[in-house]
Amino acid sequence: MQGQTIFFRNAPKIVSTATIAGPKECAGIVGRYVDRTLTDDTFGEKTFERAERKMLLYAARKCVEKAGLRTEDVDVFLSGDLLNQIISASFTAREIGIPFLGIYGACSTMSEGYLLGAALVDGGYVGRAVAATGSHFSSAERQYRFPLEQGTTRPPQAQWTVTGAGAAMLSLEGSGPSITCATVGTVVDFGVSDANNMGAAMAPAAASCLMSHFRDTGRSPDYYDLILTGDLGALGSRLLKDLLWEKGIDVSANHVDCGEIVYKVIEDEFQGGSGAGCSAVVMNSYIYDKLTGGSGLRRVLFAATGALLSTVSSGQGDTIPCIAHAVAIENAPEVQK
Amino acid sequence: MQGQTIFFRNAPKIVSTATIAGPKECAGIVGRYVDRTLTDDTFGEKTFERAERKMLLYAARKCVEKAGLRTEDVDVFLSGDLLNQIISASFTAREIGIPFLGIYGACSTMSEGYLLGAALVDGGYVGRAVAATGSHFSSAERQYRFPLEQGTTRPPQAQWTVTGAGAAMLSLEGSGPSITCATVGTVVDFGVSDANNMGAAMAPAAASCLMSHFRDTGRSPDYYDLILTGDLGALGSRLLKDLLWEKGIDVSANHVDCGEIVYKVIEDEFQGGSGAGCSAVVMNSYIYDKLTGGSGLRRVLFAATGALLSTVSSGQGDTIPCIAHAVAIENAPEVQK
Repeated sequence: MQGQTIFFRNAPKIVSTATIAGPKECAGIVGRYVDRTLTDDTFGEKTFERAERKMLLYAARKCVEKAGLRTEDVDVFLSGDLLNQIISASFTAREIGIPFLGIYGACSTMSEGYLLGAALVDGGYVGRAVAATGSHFSSAERQYRFPLEQGTTRPPQAQWTVTGAGAAMLSLEGSGPSITCATVGTVVDFGVSDANNMGAAMAPAAASCLMSHFRDTGRSPDYYDLILTGDLGALGSRLLKDLLWEKGIDVSANHVDCGEIVYKVIEDEFQGGSGAGCSAVVMNSYIYDKLTGGSGLRRVLFAATGALLSTVSSGQGDTIPCIAHAVAIENAPEVQK
Repeated sequence: MQGQTIFFRNAPKIVSTATIAGPKECAGIVGRYVDRTLTDDTFGEKTFERAERKMLLYAARKCVEKAGLRTEDVDVFLSGDLLNQIISASFTAREIGIPFLGIYGACSTMSEGYLLGAALVDGGYVGRAVAATGSHFSSAERQYRFPLEQGTTRPPQAQWTVTGAGAAMLSLEGSGPSITCATVGTVVDFGVSDANNMGAAMAPAAASCLMSHFRDTGRSPDYYDLILTGDLGALGSRLLKDLLWEKGIDVSANHVDCGEIVYKVIEDEFQGGSGAGCSAVVMNSYIYDKLTGGSGLRRVLFAATGALLSTVSSGQGDTIPCIAHAVAIENAPEVQK
């Protein structure tokens, strides 16, 4: 480990991905790239929680199928989600039967899964790892905020939890873009206590993680074709750029936020998407396609961001601790150290 | 990976541990081994949730201090807990500032932390990892069951959530018992839906994990001086022994359950302890002391068990998915593969 950054000697590949998203999400750019578009966000289930887990199960199974494998061929399933006690992940693990390690990083879960999966594969501890996460607007809304039936007005700085799930399979065998290194984030809390302003809460954690990444790797932002944050939304993205600018780091040329691009955002209207499914869907559909489809995208720094709050901590007056983990995904990289 | 089992080439050592527990817990055997006994289970805090996180912070800091190090010397902090969105772990990570990876395995979190920490250290990805978890009777009770003020009667098969926390530091440098291999559990659900009977729900997951471990390693139960399950309690332990006996595996001679021994149990009265803090406290105080103190205990198979339910899944009629991960901890082991 160099500082906070792990370098992978064998640069594990992302050999397949799969995604599913709801109707609102698929009206945007990801609609052209997801494996399945839901026309009904209940996915035929009686509760939103069951719909969420069915999406996660779909993404995990589809990702294995697209690699031409069976679930028995996968050694470990790394997953977590926003619901209390990560039930979407646990119930999905029960259905697919792959040895399971539960993880939690709120909306940063996808990059945590990439990071831990890459380490387990790179070290030869497992042959194939599937990392997956997802979220559902309606299950998140009623768990974190208000009953949907209440029709609460949303403040202008609020983001919209993405209904969707994404999964990725990591292996040393096969082809695909490689994970060359990853920076483990520290928890950063700038004192934001408004659970409707998560972009502002998470921006300092994203800035901290990116600064550590550039410091540890000796790379500058222009090393990457794309610096992809998780779900800062429009306001959070502006804050991130400002925070980095103050430290002499300019990411304005190549920064994109999954939350900003997942919906057809009219910026005055709302801040974009959030939720563990936001970066999971955008990264594993649209961006993965560009990394593998000959579009010229070669180096992506994927830094999903998470707000580590609960209704209890907010209710007890705590501010919002946040985190981000950055994963370098490169085509034909020079393998490090 | 052999089946579900990871073998560690360099057998990372548990170089230090630290524990803290409440007054009820310290009336039992662990009272002689914990670093700090609380006389007041609020730990001077206004809420039980804050007391829980203060215990976790104490254990993490104390573990680093006992190794003669500072928190800056630790590369990664692996932690999770039972509270929604693992806030105890996240807020602890904020205070200590170590790069943080959130994990969740309910009461199996301690063995998941050992397993992932061992892999990261063994592969040379991090120099030192601290794994930690904890729980608090009062915060768990009001989150998972009923308001404490209600004074609800407990059914005879209920366990008592341990108030306590434990932490362990893993490193290739230093001395201490080694983690030689670890078996990642699959999620097992035998259809138990009674959230007051977690021992019965978890026993099949423990049996599954132990069977996989013996199959993958070619070891028999008598290879170990002690097979230590997490928190099955009295009933769950009997079920585990029966389930294994049916498969021709006899663990009766060397099986002990952390939940059974953490309190002064009069068996007719109640089932013993549970909670993420149960195995974290017993393993990292009493058992670690026996492994390092020349008592002759040489080989321990530590299999913490977790019930992956939430109040929402139970409320929606789901049964309880469970998991266990087994970690082989050995003094002066022959290093494998």
